Amino acid sequence: MTENLLSSTQNPKIKQLLALQQKSAERRKAGLFVVEGRRELQHCLDARMEVDTVFYCPELWSGEANTMEEVNPMALLEKVPHAFQVTPELYQKIAYRGSTEGLVAEVKEKPLSLNDLHLKAAPLLIILESVEKPGNLGAILRSADAAGADGVIVCDPLTDLYNPNLIRSSIGAIFTVPCVACSTDECIAFLKSHGIRILTAQLQDSHLYYNTDMTQGTAIVMGTESTGLTDTWRKAADAHIRIPMLGQLDSLNVSVSAAILLFEAVRQRGANLT
Amino acid sequence: MTENLLSSTQNPKIKQLLALQQKSAERRKAGLFVVEGRRELQHCLDARMEVDTVFYCPELWSGEANTMEEVNPMALLEKVPHAFQVTPELYQKIAYRGSTEGLVAEVKEKPLSLNDLHLKAAPLLIILESVEKPGNLGAILRSADAAGADGVIVCDPLTDLYNPNLIRSSIGAIFTVPCVACSTDECIAFLKSHGIRILTAQLQDSHLYYNTDMTQGTAIVMGTESTGLTDTWRKAADAHIRIPMLGQLDSLNVSVSAAILLFEAVRQRGANLT
Repeated sequence: MTENLLSSTQNPKIKQLLALQQKSAERRKAGLFVVEGRRELQHCLDARMEVDTVFYCPELWSGEANTMEEVNPMALLEKVPHAFQVTPELYQKIAYRGSTEGLVAEVKEKPLSLNDLHLKAAPLLIILESVEKPGNLGAILRSADAAGADGVIVCDPLTDLYNPNLIRSSIGAIFTVPCVACSTDECIAFLKSHGIRILTAQLQDSHLYYNTDMTQGTAIVMGTESTGLTDTWRKAADAHIRIPMLGQLDSLNVSVSAAILLFEAVRQRGANLT
Repeated sequence: MTENLLSSTQNPKIKQLLALQQKSAERRKAGLFVVEGRRELQHCLDARMEVDTVFYCPELWSGEANTMEEVNPMALLEKVPHAFQVTPELYQKIAYRGSTEGLVAEVKEKPLSLNDLHLKAAPLLIILESVEKPGNLGAILRSADAAGADGVIVCDPLTDLYNPNLIRSSIGAIFTVPCVACSTDECIAFLKSHGIRILTAQLQDSHLYYNTDMTQGTAIVMGTESTGLTDTWRKAADAHIRIPMLGQLDSLNVSVSAAILLFEAVRQRGANLT
């Protein structure tokens, strides 16, 4: 553990941190991404991710930590190869959540492939065609965790899976739910070879989602918010499903739709819950 | 219709617009709030809200309007008492969605009370205890529209219902779903007098939401994200319901939870949908 009190955004360590937050090319080059917050860092450690550097501000460690859910800052600092104390003023500039937590870390990327997924019997997966808003993917990961899904697969992503908005909005679910990036063709081949049914969320030629069986191995496939699903997925589908729209607007947020569909699978499979 | 080309944030009209966006006290004083975007303004007109002033930038009216869903800018300008053309540079400063739409309007507030709700048989309502994040309330309104809910009631709100983040995240649902602010006591009395069952979302002493009947008149009550429901609501409840959490995180986003519960009501009531 190295200790230094940093106070300037001109410090090379801080410059690298800001670059990792802002640019996916920098993340790719360094193989590092940024995680902020006690709870998120606890989930990160639980997932056996490797924390490389911690920037900490003890003045902001106020409040009781729930030690089960939130990392103990001192224990974290003892584990990491590099640690730098920063002034409260500098912390405001490097952290998104201002004054609450006092911990920002650089973590080593650990990309997963389809073969890293540990599928249960009758797996439940969410497939996203591309991603427009990283915050939506983070929200979907959070719902996938709650629904006990086996993973989230992003096909042909336009951004990396280490975008700070994604990490933040997942509130740690990026570490609790396996998230894989791959091509559409690889994904379809994987689902077919595992006998997982493909349910595409779309309006045309579709059944109401709650009239569709989700008790078998199920992959729920969602398109982008702006253009919807491609023909490749529509043709690969075992069934097309839709959420009824009973009001005047014509769409739901993609993360809200994903949660509704995931929890319908939970309901259908939920016989053993009380 | 008055025409002027405005270019400066120092113009008194622009100063008022920015104040209305930023301060609820200004909104209350003027009885006006700010709506941006073609689709939102079409829903606003459909709801017979009164548009007072429009700031428009014809250079940004690119693309075909879907005339059913998006307001025709010229038709809107003919209807409003005050209209000011702004330069593209100024538009970037007054609009949230930068370059896309070219229409920002000041609209007269029209607060609703409980008696303004037009309840169908077996009404479906969402009740929120206070509101922490206006964006969450906007997202809930969007889901409430999709689920065909009769309204959203916010008890003892800490902010007004005309916050720009709320208006934006609702993508127009603030105009399609009646949204009422009142006290908790008024709300409980209203629900009891209309024979509407109160289902509180909480973990303690609760049933799984999908094992709970929602086919009768139903009010789904959700607490704040940080502190949960107060005892007043727990005691007023006809049943306590919970969404099972099957992963490692301990909560869902409040707007996601609301959508899951609303669409369970849709599913249970959905016999006549195909």
